[in-house]
Amino acid sequence: MTTRAVHEAPGLALTAALRSVVDGSYAGVRDRVRRTLSGPDFAYPEPGISLADHRESTMAKTKLLAAAGVGDRQHEDVGERIAAFKTVGLGDLSVMVKVGVQFGLFGGAIDRLGTEYHHERYLADVASVALPGCFAMSELGHGSDVKSLRTTATYDADTHEFVVDTPDENARKDWIGNAAAHGRAAVVFAQLETAGEGRGVHAFVVPIRDEAGTPMPGVTITDCGPKMGLNGVDNGRLVFDHVRVPREALLDRYGQVAADGSYSSQIESPGRRFFTTIGALVEGRVAVAAQAISVTEVGLTIATRYALRRRQFPTADGSEQLLLDYTTHQRRLLPAIATTYGLEAAHAELVRRFAANLADPSESGQRTVESLAAGIKAYATWRNTETLDACRQCCGGKGYLWENRLPALLADSEIFQTFEGDNTVLAQLVVKGLLSGVAADFEDLDLVGLVKLVAGRAFNRMDPRTGHDALDSDTGRLAAFQWREEHLVETLGARMKKLVVDDHVDPAEALNRCMDHGLAAFTAHLERVILEAYQSLEGPAVLGTLRELFALSAIERDRAYFLEHGYLSGAQSRSVPGRVDALCRELRPYAASLVDGFGVPDELVAAPIATR
Amino acid sequence: MTTRAVHEAPGLALTAALRSVVDGSYAGVRDRVRRTLSGPDFAYPEPGISLADHRESTMAKTKLLAAAGVGDRQHEDVGERIAAFKTVGLGDLSVMVKVGVQFGLFGGAIDRLGTEYHHERYLADVASVALPGCFAMSELGHGSDVKSLRTTATYDADTHEFVVDTPDENARKDWIGNAAAHGRAAVVFAQLETAGEGRGVHAFVVPIRDEAGTPMPGVTITDCGPKMGLNGVDNGRLVFDHVRVPREALLDRYGQVAADGSYSSQIESPGRRFFTTIGALVEGRVAVAAQAISVTEVGLTIATRYALRRRQFPTADGSEQLLLDYTTHQRRLLPAIATTYGLEAAHAELVRRFAANLADPSESGQRTVESLAAGIKAYATWRNTETLDACRQCCGGKGYLWENRLPALLADSEIFQTFEGDNTVLAQLVVKGLLSGVAADFEDLDLVGLVKLVAGRAFNRMDPRTGHDALDSDTGRLAAFQWREEHLVETLGARMKKLVVDDHVDPAEALNRCMDHGLAAFTAHLERVILEAYQSLEGPAVLGTLRELFALSAIERDRAYFLEHGYLSGAQSRSVPGRVDALCRELRPYAASLVDGFGVPDELVAAPIATR
Repeated sequence: MTTRAVHEAPGLALTAALRSVVDGSYAGVRDRVRRTLSGPDFAYPEPGISLADHRESTMAKTKLLAAAGVGDRQHEDVGERIAAFKTVGLGDLSVMVKVGVQFGLFGGAIDRLGTEYHHERYLADVASVALPGCFAMSELGHGSDVKSLRTTATYDADTHEFVVDTPDENARKDWIGNAAAHGRAAVVFAQLETAGEGRGVHAFVVPIRDEAGTPMPGVTITDCGPKMGLNGVDNGRLVFDHVRVPREALLDRYGQVAADGSYSSQIESPGRRFFTTIGALVEGRVAVAAQAISVTEVGLTIATRYALRRRQFPTADGSEQLLLDYTTHQRRLLPAIATTYGLEAAHAELVRRFAANLADPSESGQRTVESLAAGIKAYATWRNTETLDACRQCCGGKGYLWENRLPALLADSEIFQTFEGDNTVLAQLVVKGLLSGVAADFEDLDLVGLVKLVAGRAFNRMDPRTGHDALDSDTGRLAAFQWREEHLVETLGARMKKLVVDDHVDPAEALNRCMDHGLAAFTAHLERVILEAYQSLEGPAVLGTLRELFALSAIERDRAYFLEHGYLSGAQSRSVPGRVDALCRELRPYAASLVDGFGVPDELVAAPIATR
Repeated sequence: MTTRAVHEAPGLALTAALRSVVDGSYAGVRDRVRRTLSGPDFAYPEPGISLADHRESTMAKTKLLAAAGVGDRQHEDVGERIAAFKTVGLGDLSVMVKVGVQFGLFGGAIDRLGTEYHHERYLADVASVALPGCFAMSELGHGSDVKSLRTTATYDADTHEFVVDTPDENARKDWIGNAAAHGRAAVVFAQLETAGEGRGVHAFVVPIRDEAGTPMPGVTITDCGPKMGLNGVDNGRLVFDHVRVPREALLDRYGQVAADGSYSSQIESPGRRFFTTIGALVEGRVAVAAQAISVTEVGLTIATRYALRRRQFPTADGSEQLLLDYTTHQRRLLPAIATTYGLEAAHAELVRRFAANLADPSESGQRTVESLAAGIKAYATWRNTETLDACRQCCGGKGYLWENRLPALLADSEIFQTFEGDNTVLAQLVVKGLLSGVAADFEDLDLVGLVKLVAGRAFNRMDPRTGHDALDSDTGRLAAFQWREEHLVETLGARMKKLVVDDHVDPAEALNRCMDHGLAAFTAHLERVILEAYQSLEGPAVLGTLRELFALSAIERDRAYFLEHGYLSGAQSRSVPGRVDALCRELRPYAASLVDGFGVPDELVAAPIATR
């Protein structure tokens, strides 16, 4: 083991120090939102609540948060806005998603894709929820493949209108939040056609209901119906039958249609234009990544507090052992806590880069933000589902009771793996970015580009390397993570190149065959990113132990790879599980402070088994 | 790759052949139950149903199944009864659990722990549900540790009655199915005291409600309230305040109290008596293991059928690719299908041994059945949660809609990991059995015994071995699984012995420190058991490919262990992921037949996304 600074004593001072690590420079806004959410108006809905009541109470809470200033795009700094969204993720997740749809997706699309006209016309009403709205991108036939959307918006130069139309069943807008009950307008993503020419996917503000709530002529709205969770959110389907909207409905920051129907854009390449449009929406993923971390923190707080109260089976001295004194229990909770602090560090870094790139945009800055956002979103949401399930198991039958919150957390957040980009698809995008370097268009899965990409790049045959220090120091562990990532990316590239260039395998099929290799590269990349951010995190000494536990748990899971390539010796590899056990034991006395450091208000923890 | 018999063509004949593998000799009873469950009376409850209505409809369905002969312990063969319970697991899981509580737990306890008097008095009414009953074992303070139960039953020789009492809050019976609404009697597990002496845990039939449904004097019943799932089951809490029941209430197969209060038992050792009592209830675990397999089969059927219809992203020829043609998708579904067929084989073997041991009981036969039942229950339920989550992700947003069944399957079955024995606790019991050999008392976690056990046994220092053939043949793969299991058990034993005997570590703490090693030994043991059963399974040639996929997926997950000990070379290990990919591709054309082979009736699949 390494020598380390003597730890702080567990207790209030440590908790405060950890909280200031988690809150960073956003303690003010986070505390404000925590206070709002802790009020009596935000009591969790009863489990038997009807769909209609659940939706109404969720809408009411969304308006209360709006009144408290959450989601006001015209007066909030971007970092503050994301910190506020993240904090909303400590409470009821239907409210969180409703807030995300209204202010993040609907408001965000108008903000980022629209111009001054749209901002003045809409943003104040978005912020006050006077205009509840939808983000109508996904279609039944195209959830992940936005480029292939089939809804059309055809410009009619005679009337100066766009005609928005759903050509067939597969093109219906599906799974649209705020659509089934409350939305009055929608930002609709559609294939723009003008002057007889297709111009690719653009966004339009389309009224879908009048003030009385009646669907607009030509707009058919149906209800997705009950879901596994998030039933406070009214997901619906939208079908447009030649719905006419004025020329100003086009959110025209990146593409403009003149009155005569002629098209112009400051971005010449249609591919680049598409990715710029989509890239402008990256804030949604930045927010969801943060929210997944919040949800995990709530689950870990409940399970850890329970494990510090509940006893089972007698010990030698006749007393019964606390659950958290069992190794299996420690191994389920403490590495997850360690990973969560690492994700906090990585996400804070993402927010810094995001804000910096908004202030001073560059293409490479944008690509980095997109890749980081996609990666942290996928990694954090996968780990979230896994961790919450472990938390539920750690609480036994008690964890299955509705009153103890874990059932709602599990049911509500399971879909995080799918929405705002399916995790598997996002992981592929990240890996494609790694293969291509920063220059390539991040979301471009175009196959011709892929062929050029792998054909044109040299992939290094890396020399064998041995990580003598791979387990024993921060630098050694980081080097191991860097080696693994680089090795996986290089060998993936070489393999793709061989398949496509030498063996003439269809590029899509080649990508397909290498997908598991790609997922391994994804994990290696994210864990390197997290470890790097972790190592530059400042705070109490216990963070050093947490960081080591994060690194060694990750090596433990993937030690076959290190062994197969001789990076770790058999003896090194065999020592890893014992080191993980020892780190868990070392952190055990700090468990209460570690979860208190997440700063989940008692009113939001709410579970009777987690009473302090 | 190995050479293999040419496969059958996919299609109806293959489906029929696979179905007869799954149904084995119980096709008759399974088809009968399938028909009953497919009738209109068994339509799934609406998601918004109230708790009260859900409970009533579940009770009504339980009575319909009783009328169809399910759970009639006096007229059914044990194999048929388990096959019937297993088939009920293809439908609504609240009904499955209610059936399990009434006929399996309540009826089973009376059957196995009672004598002729109890059988004649109760079993017909249990089978007809004229007497709805509970199985009151778990207490708030003691879910897993039955030996430490605190409810007391004190014999009063003056009145010839037992006085059943809950001494404190921690001793209340908790999480008891059928208690909150319907139960009229309960089999209560309590510490028997007679003639001033404690005799350990015994079971008593205690009336808890009168015919009008009013709680009996001295019995306080509360409702556990809404749960994550299984809300058709009325779980409740029972508190007894000096409740008097006649002497005949004792289920006295293994311990008798004479009218004067003198105690007798054909089993002299109190420890042995306890384990015999508990062991008599093993049928519950045999049934739950089967039911977890059924639930996984339903999930896999839904996700696979959807993956055979749904297209996403364009391919080179302009069409869009079926989800199941993606490697990641194949890797999520096909190894899970392969594992499920293996679990079917292992469970059929368990049922054979269980029935044989009932017909001709022996202590070693009983231990084998207990270990197998605990092991398959834990392994199958862990895999079930993992697989259903993957199935949900494979169906994207559609999988999150209530109508598509996966949400209910996930919510209802998550608790399988905890009930009928917490998986982590069961895994420890199995490993303790492995350490001790067949002679030890299976459920005895007594620490003195543990010390003797490891101190008294020689653990072999195994010679290094290399598995040249470990990937390439059935015999090579089985040898690899056997080596892994043996090596893990021997090294665990040696480690425990060193800690306890040489280092004088408290045995509980030693066991605790080695728990992760123990869990690895558990997995290795179960996978060896499954592979062995798989290899003796007769059926179509495609089973050979499935068996190979099961084995190689398991090796892939655990290849670090094989590598660390030099059993696999780096080159062998590196080839495993590619082999798994290739097997998935080979099985891809059979996917529809493979899930049809599970025999889930279309009426029970029910999910609109899984329409054929």
